[in-house]
Amino acid sequence: MDYNFLFDPSILADLDYSSWKSSFRPGVSPHTPGHGLKVRPLCATDYDKGFLGVLAQLTKVGTVTREQFMARFNAMKDDKSYYVCVIEDLNKREVIGAATLVIEQKFIHSCGMRARVEDVVVNDTYRGKQLGKILTVVLIMLSKHLGCYKISLECSDQKLPFYQQVGFKQDGTNYMVQRWET
Amino acid sequence: MDYNFLFDPSILADLDYSSWKSSFRPGVSPHTPGHGLKVRPLCATDYDKGFLGVLAQLTKVGTVTREQFMARFNAMKDDKSYYVCVIEDLNKREVIGAATLVIEQKFIHSCGMRARVEDVVVNDTYRGKQLGKILTVVLIMLSKHLGCYKISLECSDQKLPFYQQVGFKQDGTNYMVQRWET
Repeated sequence: MDYNFLFDPSILADLDYSSWKSSFRPGVSPHTPGHGLKVRPLCATDYDKGFLGVLAQLTKVGTVTREQFMARFNAMKDDKSYYVCVIEDLNKREVIGAATLVIEQKFIHSCGMRARVEDVVVNDTYRGKQLGKILTVVLIMLSKHLGCYKISLECSDQKLPFYQQVGFKQDGTNYMVQRWET
Repeated sequence: MDYNFLFDPSILADLDYSSWKSSFRPGVSPHTPGHGLKVRPLCATDYDKGFLGVLAQLTKVGTVTREQFMARFNAMKDDKSYYVCVIEDLNKREVIGAATLVIEQKFIHSCGMRARVEDVVVNDTYRGKQLGKILTVVLIMLSKHLGCYKISLECSDQKLPFYQQVGFKQDGTNYMVQRWET
């Protein structure tokens, strides 16, 4: 492999979307996200391809040195619970979208696993191309492939219709939080 | 150590609750949860002390053999992101409560960490003794000690007042899920 991938890229390449009901625009799919675009696992080299800049369109990233990035990348790689997926614009050699699937091990559900969708973002100049939908569908099918019994996420009111169209439902459960960061 | 703990028990033993504002009943605290009761990390031997039976009061556990339990216990121990805390009734040598803190590593927030409260349950014959509150406060202070920038959870409407009293707030974020298990 040319790249230092966070996880085996064949997992994404081999994902089967034939059971996926909802449709994309003609010609668009997770395997063909658009001209010159490719969905793949995060790479160590994405530090230089704008990965953190894309995340900064979502929330506070702060200062992250190359050493800090690599330490976190390697910790996630060793952990094997983090599936950070990105979309690269191959012509620009630039990361223009990202989304993370995190797996949580359980004792409940026969020592099952649950999945969570985290940190979905698409570069604002690439919006309206179904790339957020593609990333989310990749994570859904990936969690199914990995054998999780459920997948969940947290989102604003504004994003409810987006996630409803790919099968997420509100089930009366409330999200609560407390923060310490200043 | 006599027990095969999931994580270093001194982390719980040394937790400082002096900054904790909300009160417990007289004489009750995370360090003194009640007569003959002790808060501690999950142990491998808890398979024989009713740990799974307590979880079954919360949700579906299914069949979990000793081998499956140990495999999951060891995977969680190696991972170092799982802080399953239990309350043992030392006289009965029985686990009568449990709650899990799960840590998620991030690139955002300067390669920060967030925490989640999962699978909080107290044996129904021990309810009304503030043991659920104690377990939750332990997890909150533990996540703060570990340096997380936030802690979150999902709960039913019925549980909102319980979690509000220990500092959790709804912030307009919605929880969404899809399940595959039959």
